[in-house]
Amino acid sequence: MVTYIGSARIRELVGALGAAAFIEELAREIERDYQRWEMFEKSARLASHSRDGVIELMPISDGRLYAFKYVNGHPKNTASRLLTVTAFGALAEVATGYPVLLSEMTVVTALRTAAVSALAARGMARPDSRVMAMIGNGAQSEFQVLAFHRLLGIREVRLFDTDGKAMQKLQANLASLRLPGLAVTCCDSTADAVHGADIVTTATADKRNATIITPEMIVPGMHLNAIGGDCPGKTELHADILRRPDARIVVEFEPQARIEGEIQQLDADAAVIELSEVLCGRQPGRRNRAEVTIFDSVGFALNDFSALAYLHRLETAHSDREMLDLIPGLDDPKNLFAALREPAMRPKLAGVAR
Amino acid sequence: MVTYIGSARIRELVGALGAAAFIEELAREIERDYQRWEMFEKSARLASHSRDGVIELMPISDGRLYAFKYVNGHPKNTASRLLTVTAFGALAEVATGYPVLLSEMTVVTALRTAAVSALAARGMARPDSRVMAMIGNGAQSEFQVLAFHRLLGIREVRLFDTDGKAMQKLQANLASLRLPGLAVTCCDSTADAVHGADIVTTATADKRNATIITPEMIVPGMHLNAIGGDCPGKTELHADILRRPDARIVVEFEPQARIEGEIQQLDADAAVIELSEVLCGRQPGRRNRAEVTIFDSVGFALNDFSALAYLHRLETAHSDREMLDLIPGLDDPKNLFAALREPAMRPKLAGVAR
Repeated sequence: MVTYIGSARIRELVGALGAAAFIEELAREIERDYQRWEMFEKSARLASHSRDGVIELMPISDGRLYAFKYVNGHPKNTASRLLTVTAFGALAEVATGYPVLLSEMTVVTALRTAAVSALAARGMARPDSRVMAMIGNGAQSEFQVLAFHRLLGIREVRLFDTDGKAMQKLQANLASLRLPGLAVTCCDSTADAVHGADIVTTATADKRNATIITPEMIVPGMHLNAIGGDCPGKTELHADILRRPDARIVVEFEPQARIEGEIQQLDADAAVIELSEVLCGRQPGRRNRAEVTIFDSVGFALNDFSALAYLHRLETAHSDREMLDLIPGLDDPKNLFAALREPAMRPKLAGVAR
Repeated sequence: MVTYIGSARIRELVGALGAAAFIEELAREIERDYQRWEMFEKSARLASHSRDGVIELMPISDGRLYAFKYVNGHPKNTASRLLTVTAFGALAEVATGYPVLLSEMTVVTALRTAAVSALAARGMARPDSRVMAMIGNGAQSEFQVLAFHRLLGIREVRLFDTDGKAMQKLQANLASLRLPGLAVTCCDSTADAVHGADIVTTATADKRNATIITPEMIVPGMHLNAIGGDCPGKTELHADILRRPDARIVVEFEPQARIEGEIQQLDADAAVIELSEVLCGRQPGRRNRAEVTIFDSVGFALNDFSALAYLHRLETAHSDREMLDLIPGLDDPKNLFAALREPAMRPKLAGVAR
């Protein structure tokens, strides 16, 4: 039997801690895993591109646990009232190959993306950063604001989205959260939102080379948290920003970022730093107050590994956890045929609608 | 909501048709898909090797549907009363990236492997083949015998396994199936079992270069169905069998077979034929009665795609199918944060033990 975490269960698990505290816990897990970066078998994700989107598999292993995530990215989905990104994933024991956890990861991806963004910013943004611009107010945006309020101490967030309804939605959700000391301002343009910001987070969804942020918006000392560009041909920053002599670029996993990140716009030998270097303390995330730091995040399998391992630990402590009959239980493992013949001892059932 | 097929449900679905008829249906699906081979986006599977085994992801798409399977291979598992191979997989819509089916594939893999073996043999073995040697009597063996009895008209099966209990288990299972006109003989050695056989099926599990079948066992006109060798360093046939001038080797997907199949023992330019060529009628599976035909099967993602697509069609016809809350359902797809806040409308539950 495989532990199962569905949409209802993740709501319970996150609800028990509160979303901000959950993100903080996740950030701790992710940080610990990046600090043992060398222990992981890493590969760029396996992508299947189609006209309207991409479907990816993201595997990773530390020799004890193996994790993978299924994730799609379909920017046009929202027009059909479907999510741009959905995801699910599994955790397995390397020693036996048996899966131990199957989990929803649509919500988990948003939570872990926010956790990684805040982790990186803690090492890269100026410590006195208090104002964040939030460009792209879709599915990821609340999670980003929560994480930066909690982990960075952001006290003003300036919103902009080309879709006014998305901006209103974010504003309303943030109002209902009553985050202590957080001022929320809706802006008229990206330039307006970015003006005066210490940190600029971009989370837009278009699958094309967009230039959401242009060079004249940037001032020395800014930190850019660019999470929306994550496919070949899908970027958010004007290339000249990346080419600034004072730019310092951090990526999660260089071979994948070269293909999918903002840095696909640069030469293959342009200098970048891997996040693990910063989180291990081998490289500073920022060398001075004037540098323009850029976290070119595309989402790496390790972020999901950490989240699944955390969820599994959290869930196995619960006696009422849900279990799926995903793998047959047999008296004699060489007698798989018996799986077709045993009386259907259907267990007491939960978690699934019939 | 995602349709779910677990261990209990697959038993019901296969039981409703009978295993042999189910395999025959699967073979029809697989054949149709191999006949449109060019429509698929194909890649060798993504393997993560560890000391005791391998974990693999096997994705494939035809531009309309995307499928992937998670599968492990851990030969030592049986010593701990665990299965050597477990698997599960999912089917998704390419247009939206939404998963539509999550299914157990431990049993399904055995069913589809048998279906592919029989399909290949139908194109490659002498039409008057009536005697099969079954070497390796573990988890796959009943399925192989069922398939060859049903699709090839095998009337005698000669069993051998180094584990006498596995052989007795297979014999007992076959006896209880009462397959019309099938004689089952337990043999003292591989050579004894192979002697007089028209078709030799090898389904052993050791993760090493074994030589289960040696050159002197082979006589002209034999068909070898080698399904156990499926990893780098894991083979079953002595290389000299592959090098016979009268050998004709068919593989599922050449780039993968070069890495994982029996042909990893040959030079990279040794002649092989892809199964699709045979099933499309572009190449004969056998040119004369004397050739030694070899189906060097490692298991390809297309086999699983066909099985998942078939199961999905079969299951969506049932009003009582099980559904998982693997993907959140939202009124506003840009308001993912609402997934954490909506009241837990836990649906009526089935398929899962709590």
